[in-house]
Amino acid sequence: MPLMSDLSTSMISSSSSAFLAPISFNSRAQTVSVPVKSINIVKCVATPQEQQTAYKTNVSRNANIAKLQAGYLFPEVARRRAAHLLKYPNAQVISLGIGDTTEPIPEVITSAMAKRSRALSTLEGYSGYGAEQGEKALRAALASTFYRKLGIEDDDIFVSDGAKCDISRLQVVFGSNVSMAVQDPSYPAYVDSSVIMGQTGQFQKDVEKYANIEYMRCTPENGFFPDLSTVARTDIIFFCSPNNPTGAAATREQLIRLVQFAKDNGSIIVYDSAYALYMLDDNPRSIFEIPGAKEVAIETSSFSKYAGFTGVRLGWTVVPKQLLFSDGFPVAKDFNRIVCTCFNGASNIAQAGGLACLSPEGLEAMQEVIGFYKENTNIIVDTFNSLGFKVYGGKNAPYVWVHFPGQNSWDVFSEILEKTHIVTTPGSGFGPGGEGFIRVSAFGHRENVLEACRRFKQLYN
Amino acid sequence: MPLMSDLSTSMISSSSSAFLAPISFNSRAQTVSVPVKSINIVKCVATPQEQQTAYKTNVSRNANIAKLQAGYLFPEVARRRAAHLLKYPNAQVISLGIGDTTEPIPEVITSAMAKRSRALSTLEGYSGYGAEQGEKALRAALASTFYRKLGIEDDDIFVSDGAKCDISRLQVVFGSNVSMAVQDPSYPAYVDSSVIMGQTGQFQKDVEKYANIEYMRCTPENGFFPDLSTVARTDIIFFCSPNNPTGAAATREQLIRLVQFAKDNGSIIVYDSAYALYMLDDNPRSIFEIPGAKEVAIETSSFSKYAGFTGVRLGWTVVPKQLLFSDGFPVAKDFNRIVCTCFNGASNIAQAGGLACLSPEGLEAMQEVIGFYKENTNIIVDTFNSLGFKVYGGKNAPYVWVHFPGQNSWDVFSEILEKTHIVTTPGSGFGPGGEGFIRVSAFGHRENVLEACRRFKQLYN
Repeated sequence: MPLMSDLSTSMISSSSSAFLAPISFNSRAQTVSVPVKSINIVKCVATPQEQQTAYKTNVSRNANIAKLQAGYLFPEVARRRAAHLLKYPNAQVISLGIGDTTEPIPEVITSAMAKRSRALSTLEGYSGYGAEQGEKALRAALASTFYRKLGIEDDDIFVSDGAKCDISRLQVVFGSNVSMAVQDPSYPAYVDSSVIMGQTGQFQKDVEKYANIEYMRCTPENGFFPDLSTVARTDIIFFCSPNNPTGAAATREQLIRLVQFAKDNGSIIVYDSAYALYMLDDNPRSIFEIPGAKEVAIETSSFSKYAGFTGVRLGWTVVPKQLLFSDGFPVAKDFNRIVCTCFNGASNIAQAGGLACLSPEGLEAMQEVIGFYKENTNIIVDTFNSLGFKVYGGKNAPYVWVHFPGQNSWDVFSEILEKTHIVTTPGSGFGPGGEGFIRVSAFGHRENVLEACRRFKQLYN
Repeated sequence: MPLMSDLSTSMISSSSSAFLAPISFNSRAQTVSVPVKSINIVKCVATPQEQQTAYKTNVSRNANIAKLQAGYLFPEVARRRAAHLLKYPNAQVISLGIGDTTEPIPEVITSAMAKRSRALSTLEGYSGYGAEQGEKALRAALASTFYRKLGIEDDDIFVSDGAKCDISRLQVVFGSNVSMAVQDPSYPAYVDSSVIMGQTGQFQKDVEKYANIEYMRCTPENGFFPDLSTVARTDIIFFCSPNNPTGAAATREQLIRLVQFAKDNGSIIVYDSAYALYMLDDNPRSIFEIPGAKEVAIETSSFSKYAGFTGVRLGWTVVPKQLLFSDGFPVAKDFNRIVCTCFNGASNIAQAGGLACLSPEGLEAMQEVIGFYKENTNIIVDTFNSLGFKVYGGKNAPYVWVHFPGQNSWDVFSEILEKTHIVTTPGSGFGPGGEGFIRVSAFGHRENVLEACRRFKQLYN
């Protein structure tokens, strides 16, 4: 292979010191609680410094995006953390906010990814564009690991770069003319992606809700399962169990009711099971354990919280071939078309990691990771219990949902941050039903979780 | 860390033989032209076998998706290839169709990815959710490698999982109320994503066009650059240079006219430069080499065809902070919001690979890959020239655009496949302006390209 001699030299100059800059995984501080990493996250938007030059195109801003209130929740939390650090540059900030995994990925998994990486330098090991719905071996392993005897086949499974990305692609499939329901509170990507696609009306400040979204209130009073008799029919029902942020897991009996509700209404459930393996109670791990669910439900899930893949990016979505639009057209067929047109699959290296996750050793290693975070969860739950708080979640999910009755979530968030340098997530960021709560994430190094709990005890004792 | 003892055993059973199934990178055949890999690609949609049970939801199919004609082009090509293999099970099929890279990734790049993979098993090397717009070091390297002295800064750059995915996310930013123009012929993702977002009318069979899309005809007669005096104003102009499929690269003078055209109309150019490093002629590598382009253009690009990253998945998009909607709101700010809400970044391992690509050794290695494919291109161009065909492209892009005047592209595609077992891409798949042409991709092992050219000579001599 001869070198190309004609590339513009200005483009391949080797003089840039940027090449030598430390990449972020070298910049982790020795003291685990120094927030070096988060600095990267905070710079969120291009600052329109040069707006005064003021040439404007003639293209109207998308009115649906303009409906969105403030930034996406977690960047907003990161911004407040950054502002706090400006105020207290030496603060030992501990983040139990954003739900980002902190523990190393088990070696059985990373060695498979390293092997696949190296293999890409060989003729035998090289692979280009992957199979549309993901590598067949991975889909087969997903089917047999998570859906054994549930009638889900390899070709019902779509491997992806994560559940959040798939939620957005599903919204593209549904389009702007559907109506949707969400648990209130819930993971904000459901509502925000719905707003972006134009499925909703404007944000109504008085009730803190978007028009045309059915908010299914989930409170301690109803055991965090909505009273379906009061829920209006919608086309799409987003349902996350174990729930983010409340940590509540729906029982089999509740899910039977949910599936029946969808069937009665002809609705499609988008079931987010990204925390299923955190469940201690004997509740269904998959919506497809419920008879008839294949005709009314899609399930999306992820390796992020099982194997620490938040940065590696790997998830999957199940769209059963039995799920049909009103005209009889299979939803899976349109999802495939969107995946083919708007996506090119998860990284082949990440897929090799996913396959390793589902090997016997990988499954055992994932359990250890999950077990570690569950120990964190217990420490946090015990702390708030000992301080006399009403605490929910924790048992079936890595999130602890702490009640501060009558208080404003952002005020509580700010007080905790100001007085303890601990980042949490305000409940109202997950919907009006989260007002008066704080979500405490169990993702953190053990010493940070213990230190955070000491600070909580100082603050509230 | 104690083991969790309470996971449903049925979910972690180790008995599945699926775990032991060969993964695709082991399944490559010894003879490079045996199409084992493509078998994975072909199974495209969930077959609605159980449609007779016929429970249908009450959710209407998205009418915009229903407008799409047949499947996405490349899966359609793959399906025809699969059908051919059923007919000729022993055929030595050679694919010069889909534009999929075939050569191993240089070791300087894969070793960086392997290193990053392994580091994820260490406390110091682990990273979770990445920075919103991509790792800072990678963005800095992209800025200094490709946009030095062009006034593009790190925070104008969004690292992604590929240009195709970013095109789709840009369409989500624009929404359904914009109009768009495309080169005709052009890469089908532009038109298809526009249809999906509801920007177009129905497909008009008589002219083979969607209503409400401005098709900018690019032919040998106009040097594959549209006559802008006949082009109606649109909000968005997709422009790919060097072009896929024609291989034509716009000159500086042409791009100056294009930017002026956009400025006069207040349009936004989405400039796809994914093949820029294949250029031999002294044309701009980036639209931002044109003065004033930052106020009217977005640029998207990719490592896919430079470093063989079609399966690794890494690209980037530049949205200058100077680019404003008609109300003065920065486009970058909305793109950031979409990226935050609908995406979680490219794999951290792929980003490590991207950083290695932009090191001095990586840049040299990428040039070798590009040089190899350019040699393939020369072989293909020489072959068709020697056979008396009018041949376009090739010089500035890895695609050869062969003219079959008066013939139907799909007929030519079928004849070539039937008689030579070579997969090409029919020009009409890229728009009505591609009718009468065949795109021959230069991505292939050398022996396959040589063998393909021998067969072309047999067929057409």
